[in-house]
Amino acid sequence: MKEFDLIKRFFAEQSVQRKDVLLGIGDDCAVIVPDERHHIAITTDTLVAGVHFYENADPRAIGHKALAVNLSDLAAMGAEPAWMSLAITLPKVDEVWLEQFSAGVFELAEYFNIQLIGGDTTQGPLSITITAQGLTSLDKKLSRNGAKAGDWIYVTGEVGDAALGLKHLQGQIELASVHRDDVLNKLHYPKPRVLAGQLIREFGSAAIDISDGIISDLGHICSASGVGANIVLDDLPLSTAMLDTLPQQEAVKLALTGGEDYELLFTVSETNKVGLETALVNAGIKHTCIGQLNGNDKITTTLNSEPIQIDSKGYEHFSNE
Amino acid sequence: MKEFDLIKRFFAEQSVQRKDVLLGIGDDCAVIVPDERHHIAITTDTLVAGVHFYENADPRAIGHKALAVNLSDLAAMGAEPAWMSLAITLPKVDEVWLEQFSAGVFELAEYFNIQLIGGDTTQGPLSITITAQGLTSLDKKLSRNGAKAGDWIYVTGEVGDAALGLKHLQGQIELASVHRDDVLNKLHYPKPRVLAGQLIREFGSAAIDISDGIISDLGHICSASGVGANIVLDDLPLSTAMLDTLPQQEAVKLALTGGEDYELLFTVSETNKVGLETALVNAGIKHTCIGQLNGNDKITTTLNSEPIQIDSKGYEHFSNE
Repeated sequence: MKEFDLIKRFFAEQSVQRKDVLLGIGDDCAVIVPDERHHIAITTDTLVAGVHFYENADPRAIGHKALAVNLSDLAAMGAEPAWMSLAITLPKVDEVWLEQFSAGVFELAEYFNIQLIGGDTTQGPLSITITAQGLTSLDKKLSRNGAKAGDWIYVTGEVGDAALGLKHLQGQIELASVHRDDVLNKLHYPKPRVLAGQLIREFGSAAIDISDGIISDLGHICSASGVGANIVLDDLPLSTAMLDTLPQQEAVKLALTGGEDYELLFTVSETNKVGLETALVNAGIKHTCIGQLNGNDKITTTLNSEPIQIDSKGYEHFSNE
Repeated sequence: MKEFDLIKRFFAEQSVQRKDVLLGIGDDCAVIVPDERHHIAITTDTLVAGVHFYENADPRAIGHKALAVNLSDLAAMGAEPAWMSLAITLPKVDEVWLEQFSAGVFELAEYFNIQLIGGDTTQGPLSITITAQGLTSLDKKLSRNGAKAGDWIYVTGEVGDAALGLKHLQGQIELASVHRDDVLNKLHYPKPRVLAGQLIREFGSAAIDISDGIISDLGHICSASGVGANIVLDDLPLSTAMLDTLPQQEAVKLALTGGEDYELLFTVSETNKVGLETALVNAGIKHTCIGQLNGNDKITTTLNSEPIQIDSKGYEHFSNE
């Protein structure tokens, strides 16, 4: 099968057709019509077989996750997803694999009305790079550097379950059958917090998505904004599965350092706290206040109102160099 | 070295700082300010070690080429380069390699005033994916499907030298020392025809960049535009190096099927022919008329005014499946 047939067959037939796409897949470039009422947010993420997913992982989950991690970055900027480019490197043309992979990509793309506008297909070790673009409002800005001492720290959803699922797959723990599907779904099919991001943009002071773990990702906000933080460990939103599986201290550590949750971590001023909480409640989005920013230059943690030392950092690529 | 230090050190310090970039490297997304007077052209290309370049190739050349192939796609749309995202997957952190690679990327980026706005660094088998974006005018369009029977077919520069250089590296031919540097430079440091593309957009009916070879790439224009074509082989612009190295028939075959030249192949109506030629001459851009489109459904070739059969097609990935 020729490269061009391959691309055409699996990726050219999609149901999302946006009016702002003047030229989609099939030419040297795609052409989009920018909209002067919005800025454009752009993000790129790569997933590599054997590093970000098991070589024999379910291709539908790989497709879902490759797009989800990008949409999670758009969510952290409060952007509305719009277009994506997909670069996929494959050892060989495997039609069954491609069909399931593209189904995983397109299910999520359809849900968020994001159109595939181009990409590249090459032969080599399996890896996927998606560049996703979204629209952000001109007047509101949500980045890592807007946080101030005194702002409250929140997370959406529950944290640590993706890492819990990974530990199960690695045989380090055994998830009870009643929790297994839920937890593994969180690992394999993370739901980017796109709607939450758009609400947070209206009220919040900073946001980031939790890809490397709360400590590491909160660290990015703190260093970009020049603030410190204290996390109240008692308040971390842990799932029933987590609490049924691990003793509290291990559960907390996993929640702080596990990563891959793709929840949003965000900060909000005292003034805007009630407005944001109301907006999130009205949208049915679970959210929890887990601490407060301060004028120090580090992240501290307390448990039962006592300071407690946490010795681990979030996941970093190349960290063993 | 941590991932974030790595990115910061080699990729965050660049001299190009565009006014339309509101937020560059370092947050979840980049944010750009779209311009209502232009559309945005977007392209993505991946280079994989062992497929698109030798594992031990000069990292500066890899960096140059990774960006050049994308700029060549922008050129084929007549777009003005503006922003790029760089996803790089590396087996390990090699500072010398990264320094040279980023120098190769940035030399070309500076020349075309293109700003690196984001990307991803991951661990795995060496590969590079760049998504480049450019600005195109609202009123002129240059795509593959605008060509009409009777239009003239042109190429910029000389064709086949990249393939000639590859044959030398593979030991299939021996380039004379007087030609060696020139030819290998064309292979390793292709110069995207960005200015030519912008002139062709004003007058031309269709364009594509020659990545897979004239026959294959002209085939894309013909099939998108519903036309056939005849190429006058006597008129193919071959370099002195090519003519000194190969007999005419082999030289012609290489020029038609070799690929990787990253020249532009374009078509222009009889009416606009003189205007376009004048514009290209004034800009000092070498260009050659190599044939004409017709109402047939195939590509034919003539030599000394006689039809001649060419049995090879351009390069296709996965073509041995």
